[in-house]
Amino acid sequence: MISQDILRVIDANRQRYVDELIGFLQIPSVSTCSQHASDVRKAADWVFNQLRTLGLEAQICQTARHPIVYGCSAHIENRPTVLIYGHYDVQPPDPLEEWLSPPFVPAIRDGCICARGATDDKGQFLTYLKAMEAILAVEKTLPVNVKVLVEGEEEIGSPSMDDYIRGHRRELAADVVVLSDGSQFAPGIPAITYALRGLSYLHIDLQGPSFDLHSGYHGGLIANPIQVLVEILAKLKDPCGRVAIPGFYDDVEPLQQWERDEMSSLAFDEDHLKAYLGVEHLTGEPGYSSMERKSARPTLDVNGIWGGYCGEGAKTIIPARAGAKVSMRLVPRQQSERINRLFCDFVGSLTPPGVRLEITDLCGCDPVLVSRHDAGVRAAAKAIETGFGRAPVFVREGGSIPIVSLFKESLGMESILLLGWGSPDDGAHSPNERFSLDDFHCGIRSIAALLYELQAP
Amino acid sequence: MISQDILRVIDANRQRYVDELIGFLQIPSVSTCSQHASDVRKAADWVFNQLRTLGLEAQICQTARHPIVYGCSAHIENRPTVLIYGHYDVQPPDPLEEWLSPPFVPAIRDGCICARGATDDKGQFLTYLKAMEAILAVEKTLPVNVKVLVEGEEEIGSPSMDDYIRGHRRELAADVVVLSDGSQFAPGIPAITYALRGLSYLHIDLQGPSFDLHSGYHGGLIANPIQVLVEILAKLKDPCGRVAIPGFYDDVEPLQQWERDEMSSLAFDEDHLKAYLGVEHLTGEPGYSSMERKSARPTLDVNGIWGGYCGEGAKTIIPARAGAKVSMRLVPRQQSERINRLFCDFVGSLTPPGVRLEITDLCGCDPVLVSRHDAGVRAAAKAIETGFGRAPVFVREGGSIPIVSLFKESLGMESILLLGWGSPDDGAHSPNERFSLDDFHCGIRSIAALLYELQAP
Repeated sequence: MISQDILRVIDANRQRYVDELIGFLQIPSVSTCSQHASDVRKAADWVFNQLRTLGLEAQICQTARHPIVYGCSAHIENRPTVLIYGHYDVQPPDPLEEWLSPPFVPAIRDGCICARGATDDKGQFLTYLKAMEAILAVEKTLPVNVKVLVEGEEEIGSPSMDDYIRGHRRELAADVVVLSDGSQFAPGIPAITYALRGLSYLHIDLQGPSFDLHSGYHGGLIANPIQVLVEILAKLKDPCGRVAIPGFYDDVEPLQQWERDEMSSLAFDEDHLKAYLGVEHLTGEPGYSSMERKSARPTLDVNGIWGGYCGEGAKTIIPARAGAKVSMRLVPRQQSERINRLFCDFVGSLTPPGVRLEITDLCGCDPVLVSRHDAGVRAAAKAIETGFGRAPVFVREGGSIPIVSLFKESLGMESILLLGWGSPDDGAHSPNERFSLDDFHCGIRSIAALLYELQAP
Repeated sequence: MISQDILRVIDANRQRYVDELIGFLQIPSVSTCSQHASDVRKAADWVFNQLRTLGLEAQICQTARHPIVYGCSAHIENRPTVLIYGHYDVQPPDPLEEWLSPPFVPAIRDGCICARGATDDKGQFLTYLKAMEAILAVEKTLPVNVKVLVEGEEEIGSPSMDDYIRGHRRELAADVVVLSDGSQFAPGIPAITYALRGLSYLHIDLQGPSFDLHSGYHGGLIANPIQVLVEILAKLKDPCGRVAIPGFYDDVEPLQQWERDEMSSLAFDEDHLKAYLGVEHLTGEPGYSSMERKSARPTLDVNGIWGGYCGEGAKTIIPARAGAKVSMRLVPRQQSERINRLFCDFVGSLTPPGVRLEITDLCGCDPVLVSRHDAGVRAAAKAIETGFGRAPVFVREGGSIPIVSLFKESLGMESILLLGWGSPDDGAHSPNERFSLDDFHCGIRSIAALLYELQAP
């Protein structure tokens, strides 16, 4: 069990932890944009230096794009080994004009730190490093063996992780994996996540005429690539909002009644969500509750679309090109590769003559279900009670963490703890992303407690 | 009849006319972009100075946006009055990266001058000024009374012209209106245009949530504005490519058999067009020939679309907003205002709860049919034979010239001569817009001849 001395150290250093997080958030480590490559590297170095300061044996491993940072404590026999995962890369900050303060100049507002990456995942990941720091300040050694794996490609689908994990099975071997890259169920209600959605993310390009045409001279003669695109995209869903790609639902595991009952027992506040998102109306797949739709059912969303003249005023053209980015969230038993294939076949079948279609697979990962019933989960529940002062609920998460399925499949890990410290209102991927300083602090307390709970779970 | 002396002056000054056109084309008078307002003004001044140099009484008339330039020759009794119309504004040059040379640095390639506005309409309009200049150099006076009306808002739908024409009926009174803002039927086959399509141009904005959302956390719950937009746009056409807005075709005057026969007798070269446009396949409304589709039938095109993340790589969001620009080309008896109303009603009826719709009317004009059988048309046919060495054919034009319906309705003009010197391959509104220097020269010769033919038509 964690000592009160350690918790007192954590409480006493609260402001310094925030100052360090500010430094981490100032680095614009946007992994999807090549012009930020050196910033991503800077963030890797920042993490590396943190691990070294903790006395871990640390290394930076190059990949085709952004480095993986790895560190481990000196091995002590007969103690369990905990593998900690995090990512130091962030989403692009666009649309920039909607930020109340610049995305890489962290600001404190309403008890939250506001910056790109605040909750996803720099702030949450840092709770692990600061928890270890506090333990080491009091006890000199950690209660468990620790391995820390931090990547810079999470926001682009972790393309290097598969090879890395397969190539480092022995180094990464552990009794339990733990990570915090999600959120609590609601503000003040901490949660343990036992399922994640997977992802298929594709990029469609349509080429019509060789150049933009005068819509008067040629209108009526030519397949307009925007028109073709909107007709294709419209056909990806049926009038009820179900995904209409043939075979899309084939492998979806139906929700069990106990799970539906459990979900409906959680007080999901639709009115709060509508007010927060600024919409008058929630919508979605018929026959499912909002909780089910947002976490346990697959979805399809157009994430971006472009084509033709988008400037001020009128320009009467038939554009040469149009395109879109489309992603699908997948649920257990769906496979990203198979879904990509179904998508490409269907979109290809909808493309008429007169335009040329190209589809690029941008990233993807399979969905995950993890055990809710092992010693690690009980340890985590106790630690969260120590950290936050109340027991967690169990939830499915609508987002995707590609690495988790790799831990399951490539490392054979059964004990995977998904402990989100963020809030559903944090605006991950949105402008004005934020992270509650209270949650940051309770997260550090929880992780310190967890390392002791895992010592003899 | 025009004298050989005048034609010799025109031939002798061929290169100087090109040099002057280069100066005109160097002014980026993009009327739809507010940052080009001073450039548009510069082009107005350029035209004003040309008119003054010709000895016309000239003035610049301010409007809410871009000025109208007007000039007239000293009135001589018992001579017919010819009203010449042109526009000095141009389309935006986007996409810039597709230009072989910068759009406002005119370059000569393959006997053409390449620049934004080369054919539409600076080059074609300048033929009138240079024809008058040559006549005046030889004869000191013009064979007819001339009024010249040049606007800077044609590419944004001529919003000031209605008021201007209604307010200047007496000054603008004329026996015949003539303008060149279209093209020949095919390279080397000059044409007289007797019909123009009208235009309705609307801008759709859809607002969903207050900010871009994480598609994992919220995917499945929220109406995605891009999805709503593509479903609306897809429903604007039926599966055959007909416009599906209820009532859209109600007022369309059916094509007569004689006209369909005449159109099919023109050797429209589909293979040439496909090669030029870089498409393998022409498409369009069933039951009509390509000639009919591109000039005598109404159309609908999405001219631009935007929404969400369009940058490099993947960003998993549900966007807050999406939008599109949609234009419709209208044919005789359709009315732009009524079509706008039908469009707004239909799009409104297709918009589900969860998003907010806003539609803006960007510009529009009614379609036009003009007489093919008056003395002015016979005069123009003779003049074109003098200028180009062959008789013109009669065609409908797929584009729109908003001013023409105003001339008809507000000035009561019956004799309207639409004489296009451009080529269908000129790429008006496209990157690498060009204008054949031979056509520029033959145009000047034709206009000089026309002013004599109109003296006593």
